[in-house]
Amino acid sequence: MDAIELVSPFDSHLHLRDSDALKTTAPLACETFAGAIVMPNLTPPIDSIEAAQDYKARILSFCQKPFEPIVAIYLTDTLKGEVLDLVKIVKLYPSGVTTGSENGVKNIDQYDRLFAAMQEAGTILSVHGETNDFVLDREARFATIYESLAKRFPRLKIIMEHISSAALAKLLDRYENLFATITLHHLLYTLDDLLGSKLNPHLFCKPIVKTPADRAALRRLAFGAHSKVSFGSDSAPHIRSAKERFGAAGIFSAPVLLPKLVELFEENSALDYLQSFVSDNAQKIYDIKLPRKTISLIKKPFVVQEDINGFIPMCAKETIRWSIR
Amino acid sequence: MDAIELVSPFDSHLHLRDSDALKTTAPLACETFAGAIVMPNLTPPIDSIEAAQDYKARILSFCQKPFEPIVAIYLTDTLKGEVLDLVKIVKLYPSGVTTGSENGVKNIDQYDRLFAAMQEAGTILSVHGETNDFVLDREARFATIYESLAKRFPRLKIIMEHISSAALAKLLDRYENLFATITLHHLLYTLDDLLGSKLNPHLFCKPIVKTPADRAALRRLAFGAHSKVSFGSDSAPHIRSAKERFGAAGIFSAPVLLPKLVELFEENSALDYLQSFVSDNAQKIYDIKLPRKTISLIKKPFVVQEDINGFIPMCAKETIRWSIR
Repeated sequence: MDAIELVSPFDSHLHLRDSDALKTTAPLACETFAGAIVMPNLTPPIDSIEAAQDYKARILSFCQKPFEPIVAIYLTDTLKGEVLDLVKIVKLYPSGVTTGSENGVKNIDQYDRLFAAMQEAGTILSVHGETNDFVLDREARFATIYESLAKRFPRLKIIMEHISSAALAKLLDRYENLFATITLHHLLYTLDDLLGSKLNPHLFCKPIVKTPADRAALRRLAFGAHSKVSFGSDSAPHIRSAKERFGAAGIFSAPVLLPKLVELFEENSALDYLQSFVSDNAQKIYDIKLPRKTISLIKKPFVVQEDINGFIPMCAKETIRWSIR
Repeated sequence: MDAIELVSPFDSHLHLRDSDALKTTAPLACETFAGAIVMPNLTPPIDSIEAAQDYKARILSFCQKPFEPIVAIYLTDTLKGEVLDLVKIVKLYPSGVTTGSENGVKNIDQYDRLFAAMQEAGTILSVHGETNDFVLDREARFATIYESLAKRFPRLKIIMEHISSAALAKLLDRYENLFATITLHHLLYTLDDLLGSKLNPHLFCKPIVKTPADRAALRRLAFGAHSKVSFGSDSAPHIRSAKERFGAAGIFSAPVLLPKLVELFEENSALDYLQSFVSDNAQKIYDIKLPRKTISLIKKPFVVQEDINGFIPMCAKETIRWSIR
């Protein structure tokens, strides 16, 4: 096949940042995606409906094409049950586990009343599922927390964000109300790519890329477009010095997402499942109806830029076999 | 205890580099160590007796204090059995596993005749024991190669360099002719320190720091000064940009070795074993007699420099509770 059309691609987990960075991130998003769930871990966090509305307006002011940003609300003590009817999705960051989690939750058990209210209102709970244990165990150790939430709030829709381990992949078929997003980089890379030869700070993220067995478990879900899984890039730009000198976590994959996804799914004879993975599943999971936006890709080499406004993209300087037409 | 004397500390595994870098590395070594086994992975490699003699002279030209550098010879096809009587130690790098291993060994089985000659001559075989497998498995997978060498050449003294895993630690008591060096950084750190919060490129090395269980196995050996183990720092400087931008592997621990070792052994109630770990064991294992050189340390805070001639030391800007007097 030399061309493919994707209808209304949706990014279920995206960091657009704010202020100047929006000049780079928002156009990239609206160019190839119909919409996205936008993460609220700004400084200060987007923790109210008003803040989310303002942020959405700022995002749209940089979008030249139709684009539907759904801004998640950061879960803090200020979030009250009364407003949940107006909130699509709430993001839970355990305190201290990733970029912008300083304001996150220290004790998840304190939020049972809120989770119960979310369940009644139909609000979705999005979770960065890592503990503060040894880095390779953090996600697997969070499994019991997911299981406890899933059992105690059986009608609460819980998204296990950017799953990176076989330990979480296997929970999907055990609990009806657990769902997941998977990034492109966790489908592509393992620790070998991050630090197997030279250290590559531009592949450093949370949760970290893991073992070949973990990646294989994620690939099985994505390449079959498991109905409880949707694509979420977790594209998270930091300027070069923040990555190289100060070790910030986050991979800037936005500039390559669709071409690289097509390349990867083609290599793995999974192209038939890509439409579901990048759009249809998400529309069902999040119960949204996206306006039709068709993105055409053709088999023509695309050399990724080395630097985009001071941000280093994933696959910088590499050649991808597919391009946006 | 507020003061401690170490007699003739010896570094069984040290990278001094060459040319300008010697101005930094050689004085640091001779200041606090009586001698060292100096690694030959320069460009081009130190692969002959003549090259080693020249290198030793260059090293000594930068030493203001008595210091005994024993330069290992890089194992390549040019090394012939006839010269082994004059060679103390030969270093085997499997091709492609670390800095300067481009000229390393592709097929270890081809060197059986040389290993037999080394066994007769009493030459020591020093090995960087990693395969080209997935990064977390590389050292454990090399165990079978160590076992095969140990069985087939039972009188060949084999040093498993900078062991970083429980898998290799347990070989020491199974094979009489297997020995090991352990670095300070593998005693101190795990993957949590390298990438558990921010990414720290200055803690990136080969073999990589591993799990808490691996570190615990190394600590048991070091803190009891297991008789088949000696301290080898593997201090390996790269200039800042090589570390931060280009991801070079190697930790520059030379500026902090003895103070940090004393601090660590004191914290773990193991100070009684430090003299054996940093000198006595090595003198027996390598069959060397070092001139007496007494290094005194006192319990007085020592703030590690941020940058030493363009090299970033391990523990930069941290305070160590012990100082060289």
